[in-house]
Amino acid sequence: MLPVALDAMGGDRGPEVNIAGALRAQRAGIPVLLVGDETKIRQPRKGALPVLHARESVEMGESAAKSVRAKPGSSIRAAIDAIKNGQACAAVSCGNTGAFMAAATLVLGRIEGVDRPAITTLVPRTDGGRLVVLDLGANTDPKPEHLAQFARLGDAFARVVLELDRPRIGLLSNGEEPSKGNDLVRAAHALLKELPLEFVGNVEPPHAFHGACDVLVCDGFVGNVMLKSIEATAEVVGGILRREILAHPSSRFGAWLLRGALSRVRKRTAYSSIGGALLLGVDGVVVVAHGRSDATAVAGAIAHAHRCARDDLVARVRTALRPA
Amino acid sequence: MLPVALDAMGGDRGPEVNIAGALRAQRAGIPVLLVGDETKIRQPRKGALPVLHARESVEMGESAAKSVRAKPGSSIRAAIDAIKNGQACAAVSCGNTGAFMAAATLVLGRIEGVDRPAITTLVPRTDGGRLVVLDLGANTDPKPEHLAQFARLGDAFARVVLELDRPRIGLLSNGEEPSKGNDLVRAAHALLKELPLEFVGNVEPPHAFHGACDVLVCDGFVGNVMLKSIEATAEVVGGILRREILAHPSSRFGAWLLRGALSRVRKRTAYSSIGGALLLGVDGVVVVAHGRSDATAVAGAIAHAHRCARDDLVARVRTALRPA
Repeated sequence: MLPVALDAMGGDRGPEVNIAGALRAQRAGIPVLLVGDETKIRQPRKGALPVLHARESVEMGESAAKSVRAKPGSSIRAAIDAIKNGQACAAVSCGNTGAFMAAATLVLGRIEGVDRPAITTLVPRTDGGRLVVLDLGANTDPKPEHLAQFARLGDAFARVVLELDRPRIGLLSNGEEPSKGNDLVRAAHALLKELPLEFVGNVEPPHAFHGACDVLVCDGFVGNVMLKSIEATAEVVGGILRREILAHPSSRFGAWLLRGALSRVRKRTAYSSIGGALLLGVDGVVVVAHGRSDATAVAGAIAHAHRCARDDLVARVRTALRPA
Repeated sequence: MLPVALDAMGGDRGPEVNIAGALRAQRAGIPVLLVGDETKIRQPRKGALPVLHARESVEMGESAAKSVRAKPGSSIRAAIDAIKNGQACAAVSCGNTGAFMAAATLVLGRIEGVDRPAITTLVPRTDGGRLVVLDLGANTDPKPEHLAQFARLGDAFARVVLELDRPRIGLLSNGEEPSKGNDLVRAAHALLKELPLEFVGNVEPPHAFHGACDVLVCDGFVGNVMLKSIEATAEVVGGILRREILAHPSSRFGAWLLRGALSRVRKRTAYSSIGGALLLGVDGVVVVAHGRSDATAVAGAIAHAHRCARDDLVARVRTALRPA
């Protein structure tokens, strides 16, 4: 199978973390193509990862629209081009999300019927299921009809990935009644009711995590803030627990006895283990990873991209989107 | 000192929880006036709480605007009237937030210079400080100039309650650069830069909780979703930990040794201990409590309201809002 193209220059922590993540993925049997400045990412050892040279990089703060025109030779663009040219099955970047999305949409195009691709991820629910959440930041000011498209995309994704016959679609809101929400949510609610989907209405965050729906639709600004709040809270609660444990000797022994449970909790709540979100709606497998990703998260994002490509996700979502 | 008027009919769990919370507050030395249907809330015992009869109640799903006109005799309205009539120093309700806010604004009026009161709360930060967050749901579609007012209100609140000389004001966004955010946030950013406040720019949720600012300004829809996501995540992480611990005998002994630490974590992360959010900007102390409140949360909200009234918060915020 073709390798996953990894933008080795992207992310807050620089190429080292990307290379470490790529090597970890390779050890797990996933071929990876490193994309970036070869003077910085070429590895000396034999059996190292193949490198695709890209002379430029897009910085985190750069304008996405400008970067596409101004830096046609960037590592972000080259990773996407590698899919188009048949050199890679998927692309992953922890770098500038806007630039990555712009390049993906420009080079790969969109699936028929999709105006706005949406950043999509899976979040573990308390009932053991998984929740599809979209959009997580691709569209900060969508129109109601875009939220309706996200609902159709999320429905198709959940049917393919979660193998559900009829995923329950919820609309993120600040209350369950149809009168709740902001203007956008109220208008989207009216559109979603008319779609041939299992629309369960407005859903508040706690109910969504407890299993009230399989797909949670939201605008990208709110979705991004929500996901970052969830990550931050899980970290804060974990951090308080660690400090409390270290402060007391009897607690330390208790923590030693609890170490198995604590490590399982960390695994179930660490978002690094999910490792990346799909840019759903573009005609190719494009995975956006967190700027703060460590090597584990990079390896997770590569594995996620590889799985999506292997399972022919894009073609199956395209089919699922077509009216019956 | 005057009692705190409690809407005894409000909330998902009915009058029992409100009465239990009020009795708990009374035992802590805070006088409480129960407001509601006296056939349902009159307590048989001597030394029970005083009751102010209100024949109607506003249901959770009712339209706020309609309820103000249609139910002038509701417990929500009577609790607010009790402030106006000099029978109470503050009002608390776990009931219909929209109806409570509408009654408060109508009866008590707004502080000079405030167009839109904002639901305001304090969230513990990881650096030991506390973060003022507003708005949490009073305004789901504010204009940029309303966010600028929230910044001024939050600044005044932080100077009075947190005793800071120059609180650092952050604007909730999906990225730090001024170009990040949705249309509303970008427009508000431009306004906030021009105010005589210590504006630190856009702040993402994790940085806000780690101490990047003292006041976090956001629109009510996003703020409400953020707060509910934080609450839900803290509950989920705690729930996973409990299940993991109960699943293994050696973990159970470890948990017993850890019980002190675990209970302190629960206390620091349980939002019931904060117990309510202030409707900042109305001319009176009005505390909005969670619909799901238990007796502890109700008692916490009453204590919070009592503290705000005792400290003459509204008058001090009014003074702090005036140009120097």
